[in-house]
Amino acid sequence: MRIDIISVAPNLLESPFNHSIVKRAKEKGLAEIIIHDLREYGLGNYKQIDDTQFGGGAGMVLMIEPIANCIRKLQAERVYDEVIYMTPDAKTLNQSTANTLSLKENILILTGHYKGVDQRIRDLFITKEISIGEYVLTGGELAAAVLVDAVVRLIPGVIGDEQSALTDSFQDGLLSPPVYTRPSNFEGNKVPEILLTGNFPKIDDWRSEKAYERTKNIRPDLLDKTS
Amino acid sequence: MRIDIISVAPNLLESPFNHSIVKRAKEKGLAEIIIHDLREYGLGNYKQIDDTQFGGGAGMVLMIEPIANCIRKLQAERVYDEVIYMTPDAKTLNQSTANTLSLKENILILTGHYKGVDQRIRDLFITKEISIGEYVLTGGELAAAVLVDAVVRLIPGVIGDEQSALTDSFQDGLLSPPVYTRPSNFEGNKVPEILLTGNFPKIDDWRSEKAYERTKNIRPDLLDKTS
Repeated sequence: MRIDIISVAPNLLESPFNHSIVKRAKEKGLAEIIIHDLREYGLGNYKQIDDTQFGGGAGMVLMIEPIANCIRKLQAERVYDEVIYMTPDAKTLNQSTANTLSLKENILILTGHYKGVDQRIRDLFITKEISIGEYVLTGGELAAAVLVDAVVRLIPGVIGDEQSALTDSFQDGLLSPPVYTRPSNFEGNKVPEILLTGNFPKIDDWRSEKAYERTKNIRPDLLDKTS
Repeated sequence: MRIDIISVAPNLLESPFNHSIVKRAKEKGLAEIIIHDLREYGLGNYKQIDDTQFGGGAGMVLMIEPIANCIRKLQAERVYDEVIYMTPDAKTLNQSTANTLSLKENILILTGHYKGVDQRIRDLFITKEISIGEYVLTGGELAAAVLVDAVVRLIPGVIGDEQSALTDSFQDGLLSPPVYTRPSNFEGNKVPEILLTGNFPKIDDWRSEKAYERTKNIRPDLLDKTS
């Protein structure tokens, strides 16, 4: 998979993509991530990329021309399965969207900044708008880093232990059950006995029960969706 | 505000905290962010921090002792308003939680990794569990970076233009209206005329209408919440 990211703050993305799972995916040749500095497509001697809003109001807006030039240059080089804009005013990312995107070949991600991008960019070039949650960030860079991490770890071969991803929260519509490791007794706080019995069918039952309980307590809305 | 973060992959957090708004908040003395490498609290010569799950199953679990030692050391130095664990199986972050947290003095954030932390850590030390969304990430570091960005930008004085944060999506329960900037005509795609009239009361009405329309189309659930 190839992921291109257009950003006004490419520095922000350095460490998330040079460590952890994304680094491993790049080393294994399973994912290629290329960051494009929007400033290089800026207009005039000052490489202008943003301007004030039509109609007044605080906050700068990213201009259409630099972004259009960058997207068109990339689209001339290859076909993108999706041109994604990261923005809080969009459908919220979920595990099912991450699964779908992990099967694509070429993805282009545009990250907003300041007050966002000129609406015409969204109307003319964007095929999918994604929010990572119901809150506002300074820019779309962290949102893009989150999306890339969520997607890249699902590409077969990226995570060493495939089974681990399959038992994650949300993959079966439920939150994960609680996990425990050594020591079995920490200052009087003991691991649930069932986990020490070696009775794996019973342990499976216990985990399903706890996963259901936890989902019901914390995210009952997930149960409504699957039923 | 002081934010301490406990992480097994502190490198991941370098660039998000050394650029953008978080850097500015640090420079202005409005936020202090200290990252603690959990490995330094690891057990024995190998500085062990994780182990296999009791009851079997793929994925390593972060052990209770190194985390307990780190949290207790920090708590001996100051009182924390919240000890937060970033995990997908928790209530989802929203703008209202970010607003509340932006008023706190000391926050401690624990980031999970691999299969998560021993449940007893959550039972004994954590006062608030936060998910940034309905998807699974490789670790809690990016989630912590998202939380810190969402919170720090709300501290008065961090964003240059206060008004800009107040008109963001979610602050009034609605998504933002579309924004436009120069040129007013891009290859035949024109800015809505109302924005060029200078009639600000009418522009306000238009924006409210568009914000409502967009919310209704993309996130009708937000309207249910506020009504």
